[in-house]
Amino acid sequence: MKRATKSIALLASAFVLLAAAPSPVVPALAPSEIVDAAPASDWVNIAADELLVMDLAPDAGKQARRVVIQLMPAPFSQGWIANIRKLAAAHWWDGTSINRVQDNYVVQWGEADGKKPLPPALATTSQDDYSVATAKTESSALADEINFRNVGTASSTEAIIYPDVYPGSVARFQNGWPIAQGIDAKWPVHCYGMVGVGRDMPPDSGSGAELYTVIGQAPRHLDRNIALVGRVISGIENLSSLPRGTGPLGFYENPEQRVVIKAIRLASELPAGQRPRFQYLSTENATFARYADARANRRDPFFIHPAGSADICNVPVPIRKAP
Amino acid sequence: MKRATKSIALLASAFVLLAAAPSPVVPALAPSEIVDAAPASDWVNIAADELLVMDLAPDAGKQARRVVIQLMPAPFSQGWIANIRKLAAAHWWDGTSINRVQDNYVVQWGEADGKKPLPPALATTSQDDYSVATAKTESSALADEINFRNVGTASSTEAIIYPDVYPGSVARFQNGWPIAQGIDAKWPVHCYGMVGVGRDMPPDSGSGAELYTVIGQAPRHLDRNIALVGRVISGIENLSSLPRGTGPLGFYENPEQRVVIKAIRLASELPAGQRPRFQYLSTENATFARYADARANRRDPFFIHPAGSADICNVPVPIRKAP
Repeated sequence: MKRATKSIALLASAFVLLAAAPSPVVPALAPSEIVDAAPASDWVNIAADELLVMDLAPDAGKQARRVVIQLMPAPFSQGWIANIRKLAAAHWWDGTSINRVQDNYVVQWGEADGKKPLPPALATTSQDDYSVATAKTESSALADEINFRNVGTASSTEAIIYPDVYPGSVARFQNGWPIAQGIDAKWPVHCYGMVGVGRDMPPDSGSGAELYTVIGQAPRHLDRNIALVGRVISGIENLSSLPRGTGPLGFYENPEQRVVIKAIRLASELPAGQRPRFQYLSTENATFARYADARANRRDPFFIHPAGSADICNVPVPIRKAP
Repeated sequence: MKRATKSIALLASAFVLLAAAPSPVVPALAPSEIVDAAPASDWVNIAADELLVMDLAPDAGKQARRVVIQLMPAPFSQGWIANIRKLAAAHWWDGTSINRVQDNYVVQWGEADGKKPLPPALATTSQDDYSVATAKTESSALADEINFRNVGTASSTEAIIYPDVYPGSVARFQNGWPIAQGIDAKWPVHCYGMVGVGRDMPPDSGSGAELYTVIGQAPRHLDRNIALVGRVISGIENLSSLPRGTGPLGFYENPEQRVVIKAIRLASELPAGQRPRFQYLSTENATFARYADARANRRDPFFIHPAGSADICNVPVPIRKAP
């Protein structure tokens, strides 16, 4: 009989690019091969003070569990990110826990009872908006693009925009991040693995002490409503595979189910030899354009119907350990 | 300090509908409240022979783990579904295992080594296409809708279509299932929890013995390329929270990591008293229209910017145990 075991297995490894020239046929590359062939200059080092390192208590098998988060660059959410740096420097999260795991939604962590005082240096109200105004020059260039739906096939970075579920907006990568953009504003997108700031009803009530990450279908209704501050770039399986909470909204009902956070530190505050070092693939070059095209148009013989496009959250920005 | 703990918690419970009348203001309902208020006639019983019941070996805490899958109705994938019914009747899956858990992608199960003979009654080649032709009447009605992007706000079911990442198609619910539809074809959508048939390179090489379910961002590139046969309607956390495989593509490297499947049965083959009974909310009525609207447009004070639309995979069809 056929070895059905490999079935889907084949899917992820066999995507190829159609050669542009009619002949000879150039061997097609899978998205991962395109990324592997990228020159060193296509990769961008992530600064140590833009990496948040979360160490969880070891699992039942006594294995260490580390999650690394890349913080967002300006112009987004800088007030909260400043708070997060202060919380890490104050070792505020040490001994707090992961308190909520809701299937196909979020993992959330912080101080479970909400009673731990924040560091005095912390701004308890951030003045940032959750999105930023689109510059007039961008606005002008964008007008014609808003209705351009069938995208993701271009070979130049300029043209790579994605159809978006938001009315009147498109999605695109900018400086390595997934961004949605309308005529008058742009904002980061709640893709799988993105990290955001929990808050109460008032829009300014989230300090950054309570954080969550997305572990399911992109919850785009949170866009522009909760500040995104970063993304998990390593170890998300240590969060996404945790037992689901059985309380309302996936909170753990029994405090013993919570997973203790040993420490959260900025990589820049770890001893030099212990700092994790990562790079992301620049989204402003031809390599990324070819990678995105290959993600949106799978032309390998396995595929009968290439999609012709992709949701921006199906084009994860490649990350690697710095060589 | 503020009780940040509740932050995101509030999100999922506080969505409301804007009252249509200018005054008096009618208290708005959350999506879950709309569903809870649905009359019994809005719910559709799922037949026992459309339910596949998968019992896994107990977990480390000796807790039973059950996953229930609803099989798709015609016209989709009926050849594979006939095979699946035969495999369940032959107890073919008993003693097989979950072999692959790839983060933000799929959980896959079947016979790990691909050597177990299939039942003789099984068709090893299915003749179905992965999508079906759109009837001319549908095609005609669809033509004007293809470019209608900003949707999900209508109060009549007819008008509820969703913008889609597929070029030239829209997405909509039909008979309780998420369907994408172009001018010449329609097909089921790879949303979170959908179950599909693993296969090798040849399009007809999947028998239904090897199955997978989606545990991340909808992998729409699989649409029309692999047959979808159903969706997990209960117990998906028993799959999505499994440890991720560390081998290529998320396969477990060590056979001991595999999770043994005790049995897979059609509910109709279980003793009458042991059959799980479920219902789904009909997608062809006003209740569903209001629910979908509330999912796409969150107007609760928590929200600053309602999205105005939603990806179809962010509008999960409500499921409940039959009362």
